[in-house]
Amino acid sequence: MTHKSRISVVCIDCKTDDLSEATAFWSAMLGKEGRIDERGKYTQFDGHKGHPKVLLQAVDHEPRVHLDIETDDKEAECERLKGLGAKEIARLKTWIVMEAPTGHRFCLVGPQGEDWPGDAAEFEGGEA
Amino acid sequence: MTHKSRISVVCIDCKTDDLSEATAFWSAMLGKEGRIDERGKYTQFDGHKGHPKVLLQAVDHEPRVHLDIETDDKEAECERLKGLGAKEIARLKTWIVMEAPTGHRFCLVGPQGEDWPGDAAEFEGGEA
Repeated sequence: MTHKSRISVVCIDCKTDDLSEATAFWSAMLGKEGRIDERGKYTQFDGHKGHPKVLLQAVDHEPRVHLDIETDDKEAECERLKGLGAKEIARLKTWIVMEAPTGHRFCLVGPQGEDWPGDAAEFEGGEA
Repeated sequence: MTHKSRISVVCIDCKTDDLSEATAFWSAMLGKEGRIDERGKYTQFDGHKGHPKVLLQAVDHEPRVHLDIETDDKEAECERLKGLGAKEIARLKTWIVMEAPTGHRFCLVGPQGEDWPGDAAEFEGGEA
């Protein structure tokens, strides 16, 4: 009865409904081509060895950067983190928005990485 | 006349003058032990393959997450990024604070990674 989790991506929330300009800047800045998805909601950049994957997200709130945590058991991870003092903020389509006691928002998402679970940390609780 | 840069760390700015509680939470959350430096200003977490290095920083502004960009020529990288629309915000001891056109603050720092330059992107300009 354990589950695993690890940092998945660094998500750069951009206050815009058109990611073109944000994608142009961040692509040039990082020296790699970002790909806007068909809905225009996300721009993906591949990670590379030792570096975070970066994602731009079109949002309607002020710009911020947040971490996505990928896990094979979102419910167990949510409970574990609430036990550590994090708060559950919202449940969206396929992810749970939480806030750390330090005031930082982050999201719990299902496994995203091709190499999952790789060296994800293992925790008590859950179905796995 | 080129220089290189890449994302170095994900810095979690914590509004506190004592990182103990923040370090306890983030260590438990990430499943790895953070080490507070002797000045109590930073807590380091090792990165691992395919994942970002994470750093907690004690700050006096509201909590946020920012990226550090490591480069072998901060001046050239600063000029390049200003040409892309970024703004220079401040010069501190060993880093330059900048703001992307998307409103996100980030810092330019010298090479940090043991594997530098690894697959850092290469750009025109600079002394290297």
